[in-house]
Amino acid sequence: MRRTVGWLADGREIIYFERLPGAERKIVDRRNLDSPSIITEVRYDRLLGEEVAISSHRQDRTYLPPRDECPFCPSRAGKLTEIPSEDYEVVVFENRFPTFTERVPGGCGRCEVVCFTSDHDRSFRELTASQVRMVVDVWADRVQELSRLPGVRYVFPFENRGREIGVTLVHPHGQIYAYPYLPPTPARMLERARWHRERTGGNLFAELLVAERAASRVVSAGEHWCAFVPEAARWPVEVHLYPYRQVPDIPALSDAERDDFAAVYLDVLNRLDALYQEPLPYIAGWQQAPVDTDRDLAYLHLRVFSVRRAPGKLKFLAGSEASAGAFLNDAFPEDVAQRLRRAGS
Amino acid sequence: MRRTVGWLADGREIIYFERLPGAERKIVDRRNLDSPSIITEVRYDRLLGEEVAISSHRQDRTYLPPRDECPFCPSRAGKLTEIPSEDYEVVVFENRFPTFTERVPGGCGRCEVVCFTSDHDRSFRELTASQVRMVVDVWADRVQELSRLPGVRYVFPFENRGREIGVTLVHPHGQIYAYPYLPPTPARMLERARWHRERTGGNLFAELLVAERAASRVVSAGEHWCAFVPEAARWPVEVHLYPYRQVPDIPALSDAERDDFAAVYLDVLNRLDALYQEPLPYIAGWQQAPVDTDRDLAYLHLRVFSVRRAPGKLKFLAGSEASAGAFLNDAFPEDVAQRLRRAGS
Repeated sequence: MRRTVGWLADGREIIYFERLPGAERKIVDRRNLDSPSIITEVRYDRLLGEEVAISSHRQDRTYLPPRDECPFCPSRAGKLTEIPSEDYEVVVFENRFPTFTERVPGGCGRCEVVCFTSDHDRSFRELTASQVRMVVDVWADRVQELSRLPGVRYVFPFENRGREIGVTLVHPHGQIYAYPYLPPTPARMLERARWHRERTGGNLFAELLVAERAASRVVSAGEHWCAFVPEAARWPVEVHLYPYRQVPDIPALSDAERDDFAAVYLDVLNRLDALYQEPLPYIAGWQQAPVDTDRDLAYLHLRVFSVRRAPGKLKFLAGSEASAGAFLNDAFPEDVAQRLRRAGS
Repeated sequence: MRRTVGWLADGREIIYFERLPGAERKIVDRRNLDSPSIITEVRYDRLLGEEVAISSHRQDRTYLPPRDECPFCPSRAGKLTEIPSEDYEVVVFENRFPTFTERVPGGCGRCEVVCFTSDHDRSFRELTASQVRMVVDVWADRVQELSRLPGVRYVFPFENRGREIGVTLVHPHGQIYAYPYLPPTPARMLERARWHRERTGGNLFAELLVAERAASRVVSAGEHWCAFVPEAARWPVEVHLYPYRQVPDIPALSDAERDDFAAVYLDVLNRLDALYQEPLPYIAGWQQAPVDTDRDLAYLHLRVFSVRRAPGKLKFLAGSEASAGAFLNDAFPEDVAQRLRRAGS
């Protein structure tokens, strides 16, 4: 995989990843680009023991532009976009409206955009297995690089898909947040896993995976990966993907594991879109080890879930979830798993 | 306050609360009402250490009915509703589609609906101070009663307002959940407060209230209550209301505190609706002591927040919040407090 680094007009880094042979890239962003004035601050909620990131510049970010104004399509004559070239395979660049950035005094961390393909109309599900494999390699590259940035404690690659969850740019892309703190969800899981190991010597993630593989909620399985609806799913559609081998993060995956992930994940995404015979809005996020702790305790996995509870109906987080933290799920995980096993087959 | 208890056609309890004098109520529900087949189960997520409630009957619940089909308006000739009488002041009844209920074998807990007024077109903000005071008395009654149900560990009165957060019935109403477990958010706060008391002897809630009253984020204050935007607010609009005196729950509030709450809360709600010159969708939830623990540690307060981040724009919980648990707020709490202080004045 070739890797070409350049800089956008306002100083942000951009990295092209390519498998296809080609001439050396010259990256020149000819736009006249104002930097948004970035004010961002991490505060600590002492009652909940959690950091909250507060910014004041993101309200103006690009919001559902018309198709020919898509900032993630390649540039062409008269239409300069975030990607200053006429084609690309996979490209990564710093978010123009970052919550975390080193590019302001006192700032720390980074927010990156990953464009999965130059094809505006494709979705992740429609990538080929070898394209997905390449995205895994790109994630691995970024996790390694971002982990080395000063002050970064956790790297989180994720994809938001669908207007229903607030996606404002439809071009197929994901994001990577490099947090200067350990986010609450991985923090809590690692705390529970640590407690379990101290009491029993076992790895909680690995034990739960064994139980899930034996239960009736498996949706898809390959040589190295298993996808299941978890026993205590919070969302009306929720699938977790675990490798059979415990690894701390994406860079630790072997070639064979990366290839198999592509196959299993594409199978899962096909089932998700077949469930209601329409593209499913979803959030897919990688849970992995923090940069500098718990590398022997953490267990890499991907969590995919949707707010779609029925065709045309969404699950909202209201009083019980958003205010008391208590999730109510209107679908039994066993039923969802069965529907997903039947979907798209 | 008079209190009349009756039963709906399918056996659910209904309670009328009245300040006005009147004849004794005869409660006869003449509907032929099928009970939905209720299947509900509490599962435990071992990785996050949290209960999740799963039900399979709630998918069919009433969804934005036309105005003349409102089930929370009083019954009239030819239109029988959930409230089998021609008028009411405040009425409480068991939810027809409950997540928690004692009315099935093995079930536990309860979900109640509180209709704040018989006037379909009024919002909580438009209630008079004496109506709000009455609602506080009703909440106090319900907290006491529900706390006595076998297996109930936490009582949570809340209001969801606005279609933007999934409200499917517009008639002004709130809900009360009597959970058979301690929900994650109060559990976490009490854990932090306990840890703080063990280390310092102080009450964390009370200390934070002192700090907030001295800071620049106070929105409204009365003789007994203070409303402020918290320092580490998660939501683009968020206001917490604390009484100056530490009390564990709503029943422990004095008459004067209840009256003052009505005044301060109505002032806050007026400011919230004035913020964008349109009714603000919000979630308002009471944090109080669990039924059987931490009554000296907990500190009753109300948390109100909105997903509205700008006119016509909503804050969505996407990858960072929903998957990593890390909240990103696009508004500085000091700015929001200032805008709320100016709004509606």
